[in-house]
Amino acid sequence: MTRPALNADDAPASLASLLSPRSIAIVGASDDPARPGHETLKALIALGYAGTVYPINPKYTELLGRPCFPSLDAVPGPVDLVVVAVPAAAVPGVMEQAARLKVRLAVVMSGGFRETGEAGAALQDTVVAIARAAGIRLIGPNCLGFANIPDRVCAAFGSISRVPRLEPGTVSLVTQSGGFGYSLALACAEESIGFRYVIATGNEADLGCVDLIDALLDDPGTGIVMTYLEGLPDARALMQVGRKALAMGKPLLVWKGGVTEQGARAAATHTGSIVGRADVYRALFRQSGIVELTEMSDAPDLIKSFQCHARYPGMGSGRNAAVIGGSGGSAIVFCDAASREGIELATFAPETVDKVAALLPPIGSPTNPVDLTAGYIGIRGPKAYADVIRAVLADPGVDTLCLNFASSSPAGTVNGAKFLVEMAPDISKPVFVFSSMHKSLALEAHAMLREIRMPVLPSPVRVAKAMGALATWATARAAASGSRLSANEGAGGGLLLQADGRMLDEVFSKALLRSIGVQTPGEVMVPADALGASTRLTHDIRGPYAVKIVSPDVAHKSDIGGVRLSVPEGRPLQQAIDAVAAACRDRAPHARLQGVLVSEMVTDGFEMLVGVVDEPAVGPVVVLGQGGVFAEAMSDSTCRVAPVDAVEARAMIDDLRCAPILRGTRGLPPLDIDALVDVLVRVSAFAWDHRGVLAELDINPLFVRPAGQGAVAADALLVTCVPTGQPH
Amino acid sequence: MTRPALNADDAPASLASLLSPRSIAIVGASDDPARPGHETLKALIALGYAGTVYPINPKYTELLGRPCFPSLDAVPGPVDLVVVAVPAAAVPGVMEQAARLKVRLAVVMSGGFRETGEAGAALQDTVVAIARAAGIRLIGPNCLGFANIPDRVCAAFGSISRVPRLEPGTVSLVTQSGGFGYSLALACAEESIGFRYVIATGNEADLGCVDLIDALLDDPGTGIVMTYLEGLPDARALMQVGRKALAMGKPLLVWKGGVTEQGARAAATHTGSIVGRADVYRALFRQSGIVELTEMSDAPDLIKSFQCHARYPGMGSGRNAAVIGGSGGSAIVFCDAASREGIELATFAPETVDKVAALLPPIGSPTNPVDLTAGYIGIRGPKAYADVIRAVLADPGVDTLCLNFASSSPAGTVNGAKFLVEMAPDISKPVFVFSSMHKSLALEAHAMLREIRMPVLPSPVRVAKAMGALATWATARAAASGSRLSANEGAGGGLLLQADGRMLDEVFSKALLRSIGVQTPGEVMVPADALGASTRLTHDIRGPYAVKIVSPDVAHKSDIGGVRLSVPEGRPLQQAIDAVAAACRDRAPHARLQGVLVSEMVTDGFEMLVGVVDEPAVGPVVVLGQGGVFAEAMSDSTCRVAPVDAVEARAMIDDLRCAPILRGTRGLPPLDIDALVDVLVRVSAFAWDHRGVLAELDINPLFVRPAGQGAVAADALLVTCVPTGQPH
Repeated sequence: MTRPALNADDAPASLASLLSPRSIAIVGASDDPARPGHETLKALIALGYAGTVYPINPKYTELLGRPCFPSLDAVPGPVDLVVVAVPAAAVPGVMEQAARLKVRLAVVMSGGFRETGEAGAALQDTVVAIARAAGIRLIGPNCLGFANIPDRVCAAFGSISRVPRLEPGTVSLVTQSGGFGYSLALACAEESIGFRYVIATGNEADLGCVDLIDALLDDPGTGIVMTYLEGLPDARALMQVGRKALAMGKPLLVWKGGVTEQGARAAATHTGSIVGRADVYRALFRQSGIVELTEMSDAPDLIKSFQCHARYPGMGSGRNAAVIGGSGGSAIVFCDAASREGIELATFAPETVDKVAALLPPIGSPTNPVDLTAGYIGIRGPKAYADVIRAVLADPGVDTLCLNFASSSPAGTVNGAKFLVEMAPDISKPVFVFSSMHKSLALEAHAMLREIRMPVLPSPVRVAKAMGALATWATARAAASGSRLSANEGAGGGLLLQADGRMLDEVFSKALLRSIGVQTPGEVMVPADALGASTRLTHDIRGPYAVKIVSPDVAHKSDIGGVRLSVPEGRPLQQAIDAVAAACRDRAPHARLQGVLVSEMVTDGFEMLVGVVDEPAVGPVVVLGQGGVFAEAMSDSTCRVAPVDAVEARAMIDDLRCAPILRGTRGLPPLDIDALVDVLVRVSAFAWDHRGVLAELDINPLFVRPAGQGAVAADALLVTCVPTGQPH
Repeated sequence: MTRPALNADDAPASLASLLSPRSIAIVGASDDPARPGHETLKALIALGYAGTVYPINPKYTELLGRPCFPSLDAVPGPVDLVVVAVPAAAVPGVMEQAARLKVRLAVVMSGGFRETGEAGAALQDTVVAIARAAGIRLIGPNCLGFANIPDRVCAAFGSISRVPRLEPGTVSLVTQSGGFGYSLALACAEESIGFRYVIATGNEADLGCVDLIDALLDDPGTGIVMTYLEGLPDARALMQVGRKALAMGKPLLVWKGGVTEQGARAAATHTGSIVGRADVYRALFRQSGIVELTEMSDAPDLIKSFQCHARYPGMGSGRNAAVIGGSGGSAIVFCDAASREGIELATFAPETVDKVAALLPPIGSPTNPVDLTAGYIGIRGPKAYADVIRAVLADPGVDTLCLNFASSSPAGTVNGAKFLVEMAPDISKPVFVFSSMHKSLALEAHAMLREIRMPVLPSPVRVAKAMGALATWATARAAASGSRLSANEGAGGGLLLQADGRMLDEVFSKALLRSIGVQTPGEVMVPADALGASTRLTHDIRGPYAVKIVSPDVAHKSDIGGVRLSVPEGRPLQQAIDAVAAACRDRAPHARLQGVLVSEMVTDGFEMLVGVVDEPAVGPVVVLGQGGVFAEAMSDSTCRVAPVDAVEARAMIDDLRCAPILRGTRGLPPLDIDALVDVLVRVSAFAWDHRGVLAELDINPLFVRPAGQGAVAADALLVTCVPTGQPH
């Protein structure tokens, strides 16, 4: 799972040096404003790029006031970066010239490669081969390019090259979609957030999104990395950079597009139909400390919050919020939203209530939320307001504070900001400001609050959401030992399975489970050739029984009457065996009936489901949920990228609505959670060991019995992968 | 449930005339800028109010250049509206003067009334009595006041009286929180939405929120009403104005604050703990066509969408969306969000695909989402773009369209807007534009699109949300027959229950259910005095049995071992009776044990829960969910304000995750949904008939048996209300 470093196969060139070229050649520079090569040149001039720019185009001797050269070969000085904006067919020739010039990085904007089909893919391979041989790293092809904002480098066209210009800052953006991804940057820029690098990766023939995130995390000038992703060849590499980001304390914000596509995953099992792509990626993000973006406004809100509250080391994980304001409505709306975001309303210590009460008029409320009453600052003065805030922040039960500036006048907003600036040195916990004042009328106030690193958000709902995201990230950071998360991701043991696209029958599936230490009921198989004869069964298992057909072609046996439960010993057992076999022959005439399985019934447990799906680019994902015949309808499930350890397995149980049942509720005994955890750990390790071979695994029901009595896999089904190139 | 019209108890003065005064007296006008009376006067002058303004204050002869009068009595001309901004104690005297002047409306800004305690409440009653006697309607006290934007009337202080000024328009706002509610107006104003009336209602001593919404709906100048509510004495009145708004085609947008407060509701039953206040209000809104707001940005987004798409009568209810853009990422993000908002991606007819394909470059995508490829307008020209849009809108399978202008340049945004203006006459379906361009750089484009009523939203997620809200509202409007919704809300029949705060035991509860036509199992009661004796039971019900203690003091019998199920006839039955009685005596020694109930076991049904809670201000709410001992953990429930008819009851079933089980799934038979619907209708009618008396009702489990075999209430519990003034 280790990834090559950005510059592993070449010299000591760091990313910073590659993205900070001293000279740039633009092959395909043009005087046609619609051409990418024109846009790049124009932007570099407009930005005042300090290095040397060489426009290349045999049609011109001069472009936008700069001397223009007929080819790369004709350039008089060294070239660090070549921007390629010529038709696809001409790109290999340009790359060969670039190789001769010892160029270190090429940005190929041109389309017409892998995205157009086989011929384009071959051309792309040619370009990559030339680049690799010459040690040139490549962004693109088919991309908008990149910009290095502080160094005024624009190796890009389209939106990245145009107004509005981004201000320099510490956020770096890597995006697979130039259009939508850059929208995220624009939304941040509108909130005065500055950027370091903006990179649109296009076809990712050489440098991919994850490589770039990895490298940007090592860039001292980058404090936060934001990314928009659609496809990923290897989502585990993303997990790994997520964990790296968490360990470094640099938030990694990811928007994953395409989560509702159903993709190519088969769904022969309950597990397969229960877990969606969005669930898998949410779990993956959670397991690696990645902050998920799901709305445009999340980007500026969360970046502001992370930037503002980075100065509270080790803090920010607390979820007890205080609210202070003059509008009861804003406080109520905050509380409604907070409860949805896992933020609690702090309970003040009695001393805090006393201190605050002494500062308020009699009709104010000194408990949380604090109601100052309307016009408080105007009447009592800013010092009293500051004292209220100090008293609240001093309360040990308060982790974070929301200040409501609802509907203040522009002047009131400035006054509020002024005194917050004065008291800033006393503020030692994250404080968020809700202000509904139009941005255009509150520029001064917002600038002052930015200066003291206090985020201003335009709704109490967004304050609550930002507090929740900050606390979740800070908690993950505190919890991440790094070693625990990756310790059990070692290489697999002996592979028990072969990939052939088969659905393995219950008998074989259960045998496999027993081999990895999962308990199954006592059972005996009546083979197909013994069915129908009135032979008495000889066996040493006790009734009542579960009687089920065994067929590799029937995933949901009960759907065709292939299951009888609670069958007593003796004649009823023989009748049940005959009945399920007959049902199978009647209702699934084409299924291969291998026999009938007679199992001891488990009756004293709660039905859970433990399963595995093989998510493209992610690999094995372990799923836990309420089980039984109605597992899908229960819709009570969670998942994690496999493997999981016992700590993560317990966290999975905590995710479920049925967790109270497992812990013992309504007069019923606590169930064997330790056994359930053990099954999750063993199954997830098995899934990891058989990655690429195991397509789906379904233990349903897994009867979790009372504490100390174990968990029994009453039914199981495995599906192996179709080997590459073989039709399903 | 009929509400008095705003002017029912007085002359023919309409709301419009009350809120459009020809003359305004400000009692308590002042030259101190911190005083409300100063802010009102200043605002009226700044706005250029065309009527006469009389500042009243004995301290001045002139204020802000206007003659000032010592008292109302001294005013030389008629006064339509008096604004009262003097200390509370002086308000009755002012009201008496106003009565003599035949003032029609008073806005009492002053605080110090009911919100301060008993003395304040008495003072408030005095003020109301004077107003009622004189036929003066009253806004407040303890309120920010109101503004009539087109008529430049500001009878308000604080944010409503200050910059930024609202532009005239057709949205009216009624808010119980001046601060937060006005934030909603500010958020809309920032998006160039104009307002008609803005009213902050304060203590609502006379005119309440619902009265004002009702009256504003009748105002021809109001097209949309938005409201922020916290408390409501009668939420059914809100439902009624919601239905009126729906019938009139005027969207009513409501933000309900305080939905996560747990309130005073008891929770003796499963039902009581399953249903939250947010669930109840969401149901209430849904049943009355009210559009729920949950985020600040919802207000401008939805208002823009409603205003823009009002011109498509009878349309807007379709949920099949097309997407056109040059950024694949924006389309993917839209699709992800659409699936969460109940919006489907339309499938184009083959002719549409052909028409679009002919207009695109080969690497574009002519199916939905349509990928024009980057820079399309620049390359192919606006006519081709317009032809693509025409082809897509002409497809009968397309109900609505999202146009992505992601990361266009400011010039590109203007060009896009220009050609949309040209083709506007051809657009006959709702079209939404996603644009990430900074508003300050796209003022011209946005203004052009406003002109042709095309909403521009800053994220594809918000486009999807607006489409969903529009479709939900249009569907409700189409479905609302008015009569169906209210037909069964007649007066109740004979009241079977008396309010005394009692928990009624299972025997009595089931008898009540039988009396309203709900089926219960055959059962026999062993009274307490017959327990322990080895008397043989004589009865005509068949085993196996459910054996349960009967006690008015035990809500969850199984929690204390008071239930035995599947008990065979004979000696095991006697043992079970003794065992549950002993368990009750051991584990609930203070409970009154009235006996043991022996019931026929129902074994062939699916366990559901049907219940009722009495939500403050709403009254009876009927709840449906998965039942059984784990009902809370299943968390699969829905609710409606009672009563419900069969159509609404079926819609409740559709809300549940377990709906497929009821309809028959996994080889199991369809269950008796008709019987379940019948129980819901009967229980909800019973609850409505016993409103104010029935506190909670819990049928759990209700066994829904296979189709045609009915639904049986296996257990039931009723709790009656505590009569007013009696401790619980």
